[in-house]
Amino acid sequence: MADAKACAGRVARLREMMAERGYDAVILRNNPDLRWLTGAERTFDDETAHTAFVTADGQWLHTDSRYYNTFVERLGEDTPWKMDMDIVSPAWWAAQRVLETKSRVVAVEDSMDLAFFDAFRSECNKASVDCLNPRMHDDIAERLRVVKDEEELALLRRAQEITDDAYDHICEYIKPGLTEQQIRVELETYMLTHGADAISFDSIIASGPNGANPHAQPGDRKVQKGDMIVMDYGAGYHDYHADMTRTVVIGEPSEEQRKVYDVVRLANETCAAAIKPGIHGKEIQDLAVKVISDAGYGDYFKHGLGHGVGLQIHERPNFSRGYDKPCPLGSVVTDEPGIYLPGKFGIRVEDTGVITEDGYKPFGRSSHDLRVIDC
Amino acid sequence: MADAKACAGRVARLREMMAERGYDAVILRNNPDLRWLTGAERTFDDETAHTAFVTADGQWLHTDSRYYNTFVERLGEDTPWKMDMDIVSPAWWAAQRVLETKSRVVAVEDSMDLAFFDAFRSECNKASVDCLNPRMHDDIAERLRVVKDEEELALLRRAQEITDDAYDHICEYIKPGLTEQQIRVELETYMLTHGADAISFDSIIASGPNGANPHAQPGDRKVQKGDMIVMDYGAGYHDYHADMTRTVVIGEPSEEQRKVYDVVRLANETCAAAIKPGIHGKEIQDLAVKVISDAGYGDYFKHGLGHGVGLQIHERPNFSRGYDKPCPLGSVVTDEPGIYLPGKFGIRVEDTGVITEDGYKPFGRSSHDLRVIDC
Repeated sequence: MADAKACAGRVARLREMMAERGYDAVILRNNPDLRWLTGAERTFDDETAHTAFVTADGQWLHTDSRYYNTFVERLGEDTPWKMDMDIVSPAWWAAQRVLETKSRVVAVEDSMDLAFFDAFRSECNKASVDCLNPRMHDDIAERLRVVKDEEELALLRRAQEITDDAYDHICEYIKPGLTEQQIRVELETYMLTHGADAISFDSIIASGPNGANPHAQPGDRKVQKGDMIVMDYGAGYHDYHADMTRTVVIGEPSEEQRKVYDVVRLANETCAAAIKPGIHGKEIQDLAVKVISDAGYGDYFKHGLGHGVGLQIHERPNFSRGYDKPCPLGSVVTDEPGIYLPGKFGIRVEDTGVITEDGYKPFGRSSHDLRVIDC
Repeated sequence: MADAKACAGRVARLREMMAERGYDAVILRNNPDLRWLTGAERTFDDETAHTAFVTADGQWLHTDSRYYNTFVERLGEDTPWKMDMDIVSPAWWAAQRVLETKSRVVAVEDSMDLAFFDAFRSECNKASVDCLNPRMHDDIAERLRVVKDEEELALLRRAQEITDDAYDHICEYIKPGLTEQQIRVELETYMLTHGADAISFDSIIASGPNGANPHAQPGDRKVQKGDMIVMDYGAGYHDYHADMTRTVVIGEPSEEQRKVYDVVRLANETCAAAIKPGIHGKEIQDLAVKVISDAGYGDYFKHGLGHGVGLQIHERPNFSRGYDKPCPLGSVVTDEPGIYLPGKFGIRVEDTGVITEDGYKPFGRSSHDLRVIDC
C-alpha cells in the first residue's frame, strides 16, 4: 500500500511549485512522475497508459481497466485521487478536466511527446478552451523528484543491499570458461531470488576487450585467465533502482591492469570526497577528468562521471561537462569513472549514493579493492 | 553485424515517405526507430543518447563515446552512416546538420519530447534557420516499422520459439507451494539460458484472484490446487520481442473455470480466423467483444484485444475500439482476449502473429488446450 503521508507531501510540493510558477493545473503522463506522486508500487509498466491532472485543490487519475483494480488496491479507500477507467482518449480526458476546473494556465511535462501535446491542444481548441501556452512545458515533477525523501532512500538502500549481496555471490561463482551471458543470468537470478522484484537494467557483463565498450551487452565470450570483467548491474526494488559497477580480474592482474585500476579507484574516491550539496555537476566531472588525465589516461575516459538514480535509472542531476548546475542536498547520484583501452580491457568502479550535509554517502558496502578471482 | 541490404531498404522506404510528404530531412531520436534504420543489434538501451539526421542523399548518426565503438562494430566499414561522438548537445548537432544540408522542411517524430523539440527550435532560431513547421512532427519511421520485412519476421519467430520452449518447461516446473515470483524467475532464467538475449518485459505470473488484474506483477502468493495462473511473458531476441499468454490450472478445473476458458479460447480463435490484410482494428475488437458478450461475460473484458509487436513490445497496429484504421499485410499483432472475474480468477490466451494474404498466422506452436498441472 502506498505511503499516504509521503505522497501527500509530494503532491503538496508539486502544488507549491505550481503556485510559484503560476500554473492552475498540470497534466502528467510520465510513469515515473506518476509513480512518485501516487506511491502506487509495482503498478506501472512500459505503457504510457495513465494521465494525471492536478490543481490546487483536486487530483485526478485516468487509467484503463488493466490497471484500475491494482490502483484501487495500492491507493486504498481514502485516496485523494479521483480515479476513472473510462474508454476515452487521454487528450480528450485532460481537456475535460481543464473545462471542469476552469483552469486557465496548464503546464505539461518536458517529457511529453509532441503527438499527445498536439492532440490535447486540438481537444482544447474544439472545446474553445484557451489554457495552454505552447512554451509552458516544464520539468515539474521531474525536478521535484531530484531530492529524495526518507521513503525513497529506504527503498534505494534496500535495492543496494541486494546488489551488494549479489556481488559477493557472483565473485564466488565466476570461473574461467563461463560465458558473459552465463554470468549475467546467474547474477540476475540471484537478485530475483534474494529480494529484488526487478532487474534495474539489462546487466552489463563485459570481459577482456569487450570491457573497452562502456555499454557492451553480454555475449558468448568465455571469460579466461587474465581477463578483467566489468559488471554493471543493479537490483530493482519497488520501482527504485540500484546501479553499481565493479571490475574484477581472473587471476593475478598484470602491472598495467593494476595501474589502471588504481587510477580509476582514485578518481572514484577523489570525486566522492569532493561531492557536497550545491556543487555543480561540471565541477565533479572536471575533477574526474583531471585525476585520470594526470595519470596519462585522459583519452580513455569520455563519458559522464555520474547520473541521478531513483525511479528512473537515469535522471537528474548529472556529473557531466554540460551540467553546470548545482546538485542539491538529498539528491542521489552515481560516481562512475572508467578507463577503456581499445583491444585490451576496460575498468569502471561505480557507486550510487546520496548527497548529505556531511558529503557523499554511497549506499553500498562492496569494497573498492580489486577482487582477484582464483583460477 | 547489421544486415546492410535490409537496412538500405528501410532507409529507402523512409526516403520515399519523405518525398511523398515533402520533407527535406527528418530527425530521429526514438531508439526503436534508430535500431530499425541502422540494424545495430543489441546496441541501444534505455537512454535517449542518439540522434539521426536523414536527407534524400545523406545519413548522419550522432552518439556518444559509450556506444561509438559498438556502432562501428555493428555497422561495419562500408556503412553509409556518417557517425560522430562529439560532445555537443543533440539539438545543436541537429541544427548544424540542417544548416549544412540547407534543408528547408524538417520533420521530427511524433514521439519527440517537448524539451528536445524546443531546444532544437531554439538552436535553429539562433542560427537563423527557418526549417520547422511546429506541426510537422510525424509518425515517420514508426509508421514504416508496422510492416515487417523478412529479417524482422525471422527474429520474431526465433523469439517465439524460445518462448514456446519456456512454456513446455514451466508447465513441468509448476507445483503447489511455489510462489508467483519463483515461477517467474524460473521462466525468465530458462529463456535467458536457452537462446534469449533479453526478457521482453517483466513477466506477469498472476495466480488465483491475482489473475483478475490483467497487469498484475508477480508476488509472494503461493500457487495452490484450484488456481488458474495467467502467464504473460516473452523472450527478447536481438531487440525483437515475443509476447504470449497462456493460462493453466492446478488440478482439475471447476465447471466455471472450464466454461470461461472455453469462451476466451473461442474469442481468440474466432478473431484469428477473421483477421485479414486491411481489416480495421476496431472490427476485430468488436468481434472479440461480441463473442465474449454473447457468452455473458461482456462486463469482464475491457481491454484492447491486441497490439503490434516488434522492436517495441507495444506498437502499431492495434485491435481496439479506438483504432478504426486498417491493419496492413505484413503487420505483426497480438490476439489476446481475456475474462477477469474479480475475487476469483482471470484467463487470457494470447498469441502473436503476422497478417498474411492467407490470414493471421500465429508464430507459436503452444497449444490452446487448457493445460492441467498435476498436483
